[in-house]
Formats: sequence, C-alpha cells, structure tokens
Amino acid sequence: MVSHPENHEHIDDQMFKMEVNLDDIPGEWLGYVMDLLFEAGANDVFYTPIYMKKNRPGVLLQLLCSQKSINKIKQILFKETTTLGVRYYHLTVHRLERKFRKVSTEWGPVTVKEGMLDGQVVQCAPEFEECKSIARLHDIPVKKVYEMVWKALGREE
Amino acid sequence: MVSHPENHEHIDDQMFKMEVNLDDIPGEWLGYVMDLLFEAGANDVFYTPIYMKKNRPGVLLQLLCSQKSINKIKQILFKETTTLGVRYYHLTVHRLERKFRKVSTEWGPVTVKEGMLDGQVVQCAPEFEECKSIARLHDIPVKKVYEMVWKALGREE
Amino acid sequence: MVSHPENHEHIDDQMFKMEVNLDDIPGEWLGYVMDLLFEAGANDVFYTPIYMKKNRPGVLLQLLCSQKSINKIKQILFKETTTLGVRYYHLTVHRLERKFRKVSTEWGPVTVKEGMLDGQVVQCAPEFEECKSIARLHDIPVKKVYEMVWKALGREE
Amino acid sequence: MVSHPENHEHIDDQMFKMEVNLDDIPGEWLGYVMDLLFEAGANDVFYTPIYMKKNRPGVLLQLLCSQKSINKIKQILFKETTTLGVRYYHLTVHRLERKFRKVSTEWGPVTVKEGMLDGQVVQCAPEFEECKSIARLHDIPVKKVYEMVWKALGREE
Amino acid sequence: MVSHPENHEHIDDQMFKMEVNLDDIPGEWLGYVMDLLFEAGANDVFYTPIYMKKNRPGVLLQLLCSQKSINKIKQILFKETTTLGVRYYHLTVHRLERKFRKVSTEWGPVTVKEGMLDGQVVQCAPEFEECKSIARLHDIPVKKVYEMVWKALGREE
Amino acid sequence: MVSHPENHEHIDDQMFKMEVNLDDIPGEWLGYVMDLLFEAGANDVFYTPIYMKKNRPGVLLQLLCSQKSINKIKQILFKETTTLGVRYYHLTVHRLERKFRKVSTEWGPVTVKEGMLDGQVVQCAPEFEECKSIARLHDIPVKKVYEMVWKALGREE
Repeated sequence: MVSHPENHEHIDDQMFKMEVNLDDIPGEWLGYVMDLLFEAGANDVFYTPIYMKKNRPGVLLQLLCSQKSINKIKQILFKETTTLGVRYYHLTVHRLERKFRKVSTEWGPVTVKEGMLDGQVVQCAPEFEECKSIARLHDIPVKKVYEMVWKALGREE
Repeated sequence: MVSHPENHEHIDDQMFKMEVNLDDIPGEWLGYVMDLLFEAGANDVFYTPIYMKKNRPGVLLQLLCSQKSINKIKQILFKETTTLGVRYYHLTVHRLERKFRKVSTEWGPVTVKEGMLDGQVVQCAPEFEECKSIARLHDIPVKKVYEMVWKALGREE
Repeated sequence: MVSHPENHEHIDDQMFKMEVNLDDIPGEWLGYVMDLLFEAGANDVFYTPIYMKKNRPGVLLQLLCSQKSINKIKQILFKETTTLGVRYYHLTVHRLERKFRKVSTEWGPVTVKEGMLDGQVVQCAPEFEECKSIARLHDIPVKKVYEMVWKALGREE
Repeated sequence: MVSHPENHEHIDDQMFKMEVNLDDIPGEWLGYVMDLLFEAGANDVFYTPIYMKKNRPGVLLQLLCSQKSINKIKQILFKETTTLGVRYYHLTVHRLERKFRKVSTEWGPVTVKEGMLDGQVVQCAPEFEECKSIARLHDIPVKKVYEMVWKALGREE
Repeated sequence: MVSHPENHEHIDDQMFKMEVNLDDIPGEWLGYVMDLLFEAGANDVFYTPIYMKKNRPGVLLQLLCSQKSINKIKQILFKETTTLGVRYYHLTVHRLERKFRKVSTEWGPVTVKEGMLDGQVVQCAPEFEECKSIARLHDIPVKKVYEMVWKALGREE
Repeated sequence: MVSHPENHEHIDDQMFKMEVNLDDIPGEWLGYVMDLLFEAGANDVFYTPIYMKKNRPGVLLQLLCSQKSINKIKQILFKETTTLGVRYYHLTVHRLERKFRKVSTEWGPVTVKEGMLDGQVVQCAPEFEECKSIARLHDIPVKKVYEMVWKALGREE
C-alpha cells in the first residue's frame, strides 16, 4: 500500500467557490462547459436547478477552485456561457489522506481507494472506472463487479 | 353562496397529458412558452428539472389538456420550443365541486373558494390574487391578509 | 431460504399512478401526507419539485396504487392536501420474485433480500433497517455494517 | 406568554455552513445521516439535487452549525457518508425573538409560536407536531386543525 | 437538401414509457446505466430528483422505448440497477419530418437540422456535436460557432 | 454604441448573499415574495428545491444584495415569509462592461446587449423582452425573432 505525499490529510483554507446563475443558455452547451472547467483545473463542477424571475427554469453553476485558477476559470465562464457576472467567495476544505490498494478478483486486480481520518480508514471503495471497464469487457453488470470486490476483501481478511 | 353548473364534482376521462424533453432551449424562452400554453387552453403547465444525456441539465415540460386542444397545443410546442417530438397519453381527472363565498375583513370583502367532495366542504382557501391586491394596496404582508380572513371566518361561525 | 407465494415474479397490469400538482400547501404538511398515503395502501409515494405558473415553486405528488385502493387514496388527497383535482392513469408493473436469507456477522444475523429474474438472482442487498439498528446499537457507521455483510457473503461462498 | 432568554432576537456571527457533494452513496443511507447530524447539534440539514460529472445525479448535503460543533459534525460526515472532503465557510445569522402562547380549541390547547422583529409580531404559526398529534388522535385532517386554531385566534381578539 | 424516408413526419402510437424509482443506488452507477440504456435502443433516458419515504433523496429513471425493446430494456434495468420492479405505460409520439442542410462558415461546413411540421420549417438548429468539434479544433467558444452559423444563414438568404 | 459609466467592467467586493430555508409556506406566496425582493433592490433572487427533515419538500430562497440593502431585504423576508432566521455572507462579484446596440430587422430595430471582458466582446444577445414584444405583436414565434436578429447581424458585417 503506497501513500503519495500530496494525498496526506490536510486542511486547505485557500479554496474558492464560484457561482453563476444561467437562464439564457441551452442545456446542451452546459454539458460541454463542465468538461472545459474540469480541464482548466476546477476541483468540482456541478449544476443545480433553480427557479428564476419571470417563470424561468434556470441553472446554478457552482465550482470549487484554488486561488491561482480563478482567472483561468473566469475566462471560461465569460467566454463559454452567457453570463455577465461571476461571483465567488472563500472557503476551507478538509481533505482526508488517500491510499490505494489492489484486490484480486476472478477478473483481475481492482484498485480500492481508502480515505484516512487521523490515521484510521473511514472510507473504502472500489474505483468506479476500473469496475466499469471490467463490466464492459466481461459483459456483466457493474453491480456484480462491486459485489465481487467486497467478497474478495472478505476472504482476504 | 352560488354554485356554477360547470363547477359540479365530476370525473373527466377525456383528458391528456403532453410531455416534451428540452435540452437545447434557453430558460428565458420557457417562461414565455408557459404563458402561451395557458392562453391556448392548457389546464396545467409545469416544468421539472431533468438530467439528460451528455451531462445536460434539461427541462421536462408537462401539461394537461382536453382532446379538442391537442392540435392547438402541439402547434405551440413545435413552433415555440426546439423539440422535434411531442408525446402524450390519456388520463382521468376527478374534480371537486367548487363554490365561492365572500368574507368581510377590515380591508373589504375577500372571496373564499371551497371544494366539495360528496357535498362536504374539504377545501377552503382565500383567493390568492385578491389577498395579494389587498396586500399591495394597504402595504401589508400577504400573510397578514390570510390571517385576517381566517380570523374573520372564525368570528362568522 | 424461503419464498413466499405472493413474492413470485409476475406482471401486474392492474396498477394506477395518481398525480396531484400542489402550489398552495406548506411542505411540513406534505411530510405527514406521505405517511398517511403509505398507511392507506399506496405502494409508492414520492414528490418532485416543479415550476408552476406565476413563478411558484410547487410539488408534484405521485403515487402508485392498485385499483381497489383508488377511492381510499383519493379521500386522503382531497382531505389532507389543498388540491381541487386528482388525475390518474393505468400502468403495468413487472415485479421480481423476492427471497430472503440470513447472513452471520460478528454483530449477529442480517437479512439479505434477493430479487430473481427468470429464476436467476439479479438483486442482492442487506435490509437497510436491520443494518441501521445494528449501527445504532453498536455505535458504528451503517457503512461498516454493509461492508461486514458483503465480506461475510464472500467468506460463505 | 413567556419569553425564554435564549430566544431573544439576536445576530449570531459565529455560524458555519458545511457542504459535501455526494455521487457514490445510496439515498437510503442519507435519510439516516440526516438524523445523525441533527442529533449531533446541526441547526439545519438539507439536501439539494445536483448534476455532477459523467452524467451522475448527485446530492449536495448542506448544514448549519456553530463553531464548537464543527469537529463532531465532520466526524459524522467522514464516517457515515462516502466523501473524501468537507468544505465550510463562515456566515452570519439574524434570529427573531420567539414567544409561545396557548390557544384553546375544541380539541384542547394548541401552542402557537410567534416571531418578533424589533418587538413586533411578524410570525405566528401553530406548532405543526401538536396539530399532527390532534389530527391523528381525532382522525381529522391536519388542515382542519390549522383552520380551527386560526378561527380560535379570531374569536380571542 | 435530402430527406431520409424514416425521417418523415408521423404519429407513432406504439411507444412506451418505462419508469423506476431508485433510492438504494449510488449516482455514479446511474451515469453508466444511462449509456447502456441508450445502447440498447431506448429513445430517451432521463433522471428526475425525487423525495422518497424516510427522508431519502432518490432518482426517478424514465425512458421511452418501442414495444419491441421492452424486454431488452427490462433486462438492463433489473441487472444494472437495484430495483425490484419496473413500471410502464403506452403513449403516442408525434415526430416532425427531419431534414439536414450544410452551411458554409470560415471554419468549414456545419450541418443544420430542420424540423418540418406540415411541410413548413419550424425548427432549425446547428448540430451541436459538429459545432463542439470545431470549437475544440480552433480553440474558440462554441457560442461563437453558433453565432457564425446563424450569421452565415443570414448571408445565404 | 453607447457605454454608460455604471456599466464598466469592475469587481465589486461589497456584495452579500442571503439565504432562507422554507418548509412552512405555500408556493403561491413565494412567487409574490420574489417580486417584492426585486422591487426592494435585490440583484438576483432564486429558489432551489431542497429536502428538509421529516420528509418535507422545502425551498431554499437565495438572493444577492449590496450591503446597504441588507436591512430592507431582511424586513421583507421576515414579514412576508414564515422564517424565524435569515443567514448571509459576503462575496465578490466580477461584472462585465455592458454595451447596447440596435440591429435592424424587418419588424423594426432590436437592442442587442454586449458584454465586454478586457475590452473584447464575449457576450452578445438580443434583449429578450423586446423580442417577445415583437413576437406578440406580429404573432410569430420568439424563436423566429431571434433567428432574424442573428441573420441581420450576419448581413451587417
């Protein structure tokens, strides 16, 4: 089991949340904007349905980013969405230490990600994308792959 | 208290629900589309936020209409939204008898709408638009107007 | 492992969905209405946020029920909510066979529910309420109880 | 009418909002997590549906808590949900003075909660849980209980 | 401009809507399930946030499919989600005739899709995926590509 | 093309977001509350559906306002909604420079609003309310008016 230095538990008090209200952009553009924002270094990007003035169903775009990414992210928001204003505020993030281990299953090894709080494992989950690849390759439900990983963890103990 | 004939309790098994999924229209157009649909005779029009393919936040437009309005409503949906298809199905509506009475308050009379099930009052509510007008006129919270109507109903009994 | 006769896989084409749009009822009442509807025999009750006319955030109440429950359910909807109309339509439900087995964990036995399609297990899940009770009793995360059940299933095989 | 000292109108500038994005946890666990968070002293806990990357319907968990509860709340979030990070920021809360009075109805006394702004009553509402208990006990709609309380308030004046 | 025979305006009264309520599945699985359902021939797949019993945020999965796809789709729903039941009902779809034309822009030709109602163009929109590819290739906002297409259409007339 | 001084690009670090959770107010009141808040100077007001305790569908009211409007806005929230508490926090808004130009169409001139980032046009959109008026007057889809404006912009270049 290997722990990468950047994965140690820490409190980061230099993060920002940015927000934009949108009522004049088609939804199909927003799927693409999300990709661009992740590529530009946003840590999280998510949409919430909102009710805006004049009976308009709108979308609240929210994202998290570090201070050094603010300008790059703003450029994308102004150029790729239809907004005339972007708002943001400072927040603190407490992140767990992350460790990765391999579990053997009949379809090969699967990575399990663990989250550590004060040195104790509090999170433990198979990596979704690996499970999905196995499911695709062997034409089985992804649900089955998860079951197999959990059962393999049981036999290892 | 007067009961209009068209307001008798009845079961209408000739209604339709129409639905459209939209991911390529700005929200500000949809506020206007709702107005047009009500004007064309839709009984109810409402939007639900939905998650569509390719990470697109979309809107599910739903409406109720009678069979005779279907064609008129379809024209609006095809001309005013961006959809290439409209779906619909038949449903049954059970509607209560509606009666209207006046209640005296210090700001004048307010209409109270009652809903009757098997001849029994099961709904009773001040008409919102009248309460709002009084609130606007006297510069008081609409909440206060409702309270006054309820208290007046208590004193009348 | 015991299979109750009423739990056999079957297609039920005598179910109904009922729906009500609500924009004039406080949310706190709706939490209680859901309880009443389940008690009256509704198979499923759920709320969806909707955008209604005049900029009103509303709620779409939906439920599934058998034909014989329709009248009882309507009574509740008319008496406990503020609606003046209820709509409904017929639908078909395909239900899996359900089986129940016990799995031994260090905290005692836990029931696992299985769903069978054409005689094959396609669903397999610990009963949530039992896991929650164990979590409460032993002051451990419910997540841990699930993990233990899955691992126990792995060792049994 | 009694006013508890802790219920005086005040501005509390020592509150925090905590947030977690969740796309890898079943909804049934989240119902339980809400209970645990309230028990641990969170002032408000609520969920918002969000659209996350890779077409995933997710949930934004938000809660309000005082500075002294932050650590306890974090423990619950990390142990009971599947998150690897928790974010939070400082905010200010303006709370009204709260007073409680009893109103007599034909089904016994009901508490009415009042909110005071600058010494003036701006909120006035029957306590929902008491109305619900009366509704259950007498097998009447909770709507009727509210109506009775309002009418009783009208007769008292 | 070419019209494919399968693209003629028509009313299809052999479609079905299928629905599943889900409160015990992680959101990350649902992103993948959507892909599988489209691959299996579903015409539309979308998620709606719903409020289920016991304070659980859930997801309503809805899809449209033809009668001949029902069994294949059911297999996926039962095997890939956690549901024990699937419901469905019949509906009618009115689809517009679809035509495709090419518009020349400074970045090359872009397909514009038109929707025809009674032989009249009522829909006209650039194909999103093509605009996105151009945006990616030339490192410009997709918004700019749409503007260019519309302006080119103006110069053509 | 005229640029109003108040429309220059700027960063405003004196804005506030206010929030209220509501589970005991009818939706029809909230449509009206939104109007009052805009009239009182709120820059943005929007509603989000939330899941609150005890299975209650609720509404999160959010708004943006300047420091000088805080007290006026609070008065409205306390008097017109049912809340006993209002929360708020400081945030920063980056606003683009706004310019307005007229475009000639066969139905008369339409204003196009442009947003400028570092002196470059990044936003360009017809004013919705003007397009809507033209659509109403000439009985044509608002979609057609937008198309005409874009095509006119193409011919002007």
